[in-house]
Amino acid sequence: MKGMTGSTLYEVVAQRVTRLIDSGAYRVGDRVPSVRALSTELKVSITTVLEAYRILENRGLIEPRPQSGYYVRPRPPQPADAPPPPRAPVEPTPVNVIDLSLRLVREGLDPRYVSLGVAYPNPDLLPSEKLSRLLAAASRRSPRMATALDVLPGCPALRVQIARRALLGGCTLSPDEFVTTCGAQEAISLTLRALCRPGDTVAVESPIFFGILQAIELQGLRAVEIDADPKEGMRMEALRAALRRHRVKLVVAIPSFNNPLGSCMPDEKRRELARMLASRDVPFLEDDMVGELHHGTTRPRMVKSYDTRGLVLACGSFSKVLAPGYRVGWLAPGRFQREIQRLKAMSTIATSTPVQMAIAEFLDHGGYDRYLRHVRRVYAANIHALARAVVRSFPTGTSVSWPAGGYVLWVRMPPGVDALLLYERALRAGATIAPGHIFSPRQRFRHFVRLNASTWSPEVDAAIATIGRIAGELARIPAARGTHRT
Amino acid sequence: MKGMTGSTLYEVVAQRVTRLIDSGAYRVGDRVPSVRALSTELKVSITTVLEAYRILENRGLIEPRPQSGYYVRPRPPQPADAPPPPRAPVEPTPVNVIDLSLRLVREGLDPRYVSLGVAYPNPDLLPSEKLSRLLAAASRRSPRMATALDVLPGCPALRVQIARRALLGGCTLSPDEFVTTCGAQEAISLTLRALCRPGDTVAVESPIFFGILQAIELQGLRAVEIDADPKEGMRMEALRAALRRHRVKLVVAIPSFNNPLGSCMPDEKRRELARMLASRDVPFLEDDMVGELHHGTTRPRMVKSYDTRGLVLACGSFSKVLAPGYRVGWLAPGRFQREIQRLKAMSTIATSTPVQMAIAEFLDHGGYDRYLRHVRRVYAANIHALARAVVRSFPTGTSVSWPAGGYVLWVRMPPGVDALLLYERALRAGATIAPGHIFSPRQRFRHFVRLNASTWSPEVDAAIATIGRIAGELARIPAARGTHRT
Repeated sequence: MKGMTGSTLYEVVAQRVTRLIDSGAYRVGDRVPSVRALSTELKVSITTVLEAYRILENRGLIEPRPQSGYYVRPRPPQPADAPPPPRAPVEPTPVNVIDLSLRLVREGLDPRYVSLGVAYPNPDLLPSEKLSRLLAAASRRSPRMATALDVLPGCPALRVQIARRALLGGCTLSPDEFVTTCGAQEAISLTLRALCRPGDTVAVESPIFFGILQAIELQGLRAVEIDADPKEGMRMEALRAALRRHRVKLVVAIPSFNNPLGSCMPDEKRRELARMLASRDVPFLEDDMVGELHHGTTRPRMVKSYDTRGLVLACGSFSKVLAPGYRVGWLAPGRFQREIQRLKAMSTIATSTPVQMAIAEFLDHGGYDRYLRHVRRVYAANIHALARAVVRSFPTGTSVSWPAGGYVLWVRMPPGVDALLLYERALRAGATIAPGHIFSPRQRFRHFVRLNASTWSPEVDAAIATIGRIAGELARIPAARGTHRT
Repeated sequence: MKGMTGSTLYEVVAQRVTRLIDSGAYRVGDRVPSVRALSTELKVSITTVLEAYRILENRGLIEPRPQSGYYVRPRPPQPADAPPPPRAPVEPTPVNVIDLSLRLVREGLDPRYVSLGVAYPNPDLLPSEKLSRLLAAASRRSPRMATALDVLPGCPALRVQIARRALLGGCTLSPDEFVTTCGAQEAISLTLRALCRPGDTVAVESPIFFGILQAIELQGLRAVEIDADPKEGMRMEALRAALRRHRVKLVVAIPSFNNPLGSCMPDEKRRELARMLASRDVPFLEDDMVGELHHGTTRPRMVKSYDTRGLVLACGSFSKVLAPGYRVGWLAPGRFQREIQRLKAMSTIATSTPVQMAIAEFLDHGGYDRYLRHVRRVYAANIHALARAVVRSFPTGTSVSWPAGGYVLWVRMPPGVDALLLYERALRAGATIAPGHIFSPRQRFRHFVRLNASTWSPEVDAAIATIGRIAGELARIPAARGTHRT
């Protein structure tokens, strides 16, 4: 294991141990090799093994016991253990999520509820004071620049930083290959408007973030759903079949920590995807909102890094990580740079200047990497706590996702439990959830819910107990009275 | 003249004197009544007459001569003096301005040129330092609020301030009747997307700001042009005929200081317009970008103030007055509140929080009214200086607008001068202008240019001399070689 950088090496060691656990060599409750033993066996330092074990601990695979060592933890049942959801229809269909999802977001942001319904960062973790100081300093240092229009493609200092971050995802892009946007939602909306006309067909990973589906519906497009594997994301054979069968104008997916599924596409699949798209000349929108919120040590490579023909439009934002209220996102539009800038000029003209300056400073010298290391650990732990609470409270037959990054949990309940009914009753009990309906064009995931895991607190714990109890009651309603239809 | 507030009274006195000049009672070079004499005659104070004369001076009607009094100034020829531009076609037509206008904006914002091509505020006048201090103070005082998502319909403190300002335009609207937007361009874009479907017809004042035409073209709408009178704006009889003849989904105009024309619709026409729209149930987008930049003492009433049925959507922004780079605008969508919020949620989710907080503070206690009084005077004076320079340098047959507010000048050249050709040659000489082509759907105003008058400087003076000289050369090109086509 010579010649590897530290963090890659940690991950390699962590994966070796994971395989040992997965293969059954170590079962729940077993003690894994001691740090010293593993260090000797693999010829790596003690520090390396400790780091690898910390990763596995963050992922909830092992736990330390004082004076004794590390043990394999009980894992909550995973989606892969249970029957898959209904297969996606193979024909493109209209999308129908706008009305429901807008209501859910409105109620999800209402501070009167315990909010598990929106994917919103933990306000206690956000570097709000630091950002505010940097915003203050930047705008007072260059007041004229701060009030001046930030001409397209957007704040040069910020694009430099975004280009540097993209390097970690394997992308060697120049700052000029990015456009800054009013959040990632603008990037998504611009992409769909630039590449598709009403009636066109797009292929979307399923399940997928409802904001993407909203934009598809708004533009009058049809969507063909590509089933996602809970671990590896979009199924390549399903995508291949869809591309063969339909005239697909654009493929959309979240390869790194799909929202809501938590899946992460392996490198080889990303390469294969880029190749498949190139051979058919089909553009791909890579939503990389939480690519930097990996729970392991390394950031996944972006599909964009395998793009040789400018077909991949990668987008992201700082809303899920730094400051939801700043509304700053980005898009690397590949060969569609001109169309995207054109549309942006006519939609919002430019992105707000001072907030871009503040984020550029934070990325440049605000301790962004240290901050990310911290929040990744907390989010990984919170997801695990939430998952365990769900397994404890929800009816038998419930399974939960095992996200490799981000901070949302995807929960499949027994088929009799209608998530929308659960939503209404949870709301009356003072908490919001995101029913699975809004994560597919035709509201397929009716007995699924997505839970926001960014915050773990006694209130959240209590809310999960309540929601689990309600789900249990709904599970006992005879099928004829349930609203399950798939 | 009892019972009037100061500023109304100043305006009344100013208008009396204007009528005397317009009627020929006082001709160019004549001395107008002395301050004392007018004070006695009208039974108003010396101060009132001085204020009224200051207004007339700002408007370029009179000028003081030391130790002697005020004299009627030579006025540049006005559009009303000269033959009107070609009549608007009566049939709706597709719009074709995007490609040209985007290029012009890009080059117009390029700092290498003397920029007369974009309507951009004078950077020396903007309260950049004050705003930056308020931005710094607000975000440091409430860092968590500054990073939090600003949920729809937008920053409450800012909507309170906008509602108060709208009172001055005669609108009694509650803060909840406003939505904040990423600049006025987003408000315009949202309105068109909410109310119209591709192929629909909208009626637009002509000439009109190209950003509106871009949004109309982008959405695949057809436009029927309503000729605007250089003084009073949209011609009511033309609008009435268009509404009778076509199924118009939306009427769009800039009643207060049309960009580029400078016209201001009189109150009685605004009332008539609101009535006409109500009787036919046709919505109206009132672009009020520079309503507060009146050169006289009073802000025009908004058409929205006569709206009894929620049919008027009024929009504006702080980009032309306070901070182009903040990208903060507003929309009072009347009965379309729900549709507008829905679209905004899916396009950009929300407007950036800290910049809204800063503007709210500036409006609340930053001396906004004092600031406005100052810039109005400067802009009125700069327009006048620019108008005189144009009259001096441009070929015979040129006439200029006489804007009652804002900071753009509309120049009509002899029909042989193609504004686009003038644009190209001016660009080579280091200056940008806005050719009239982009201010109507079918590029009707081909021998017109719009000039930005926010800044007056020796460089601008020299640029006008150069552009005027080039225009003179183009005027001498035989018609067959010109590109004039209307």
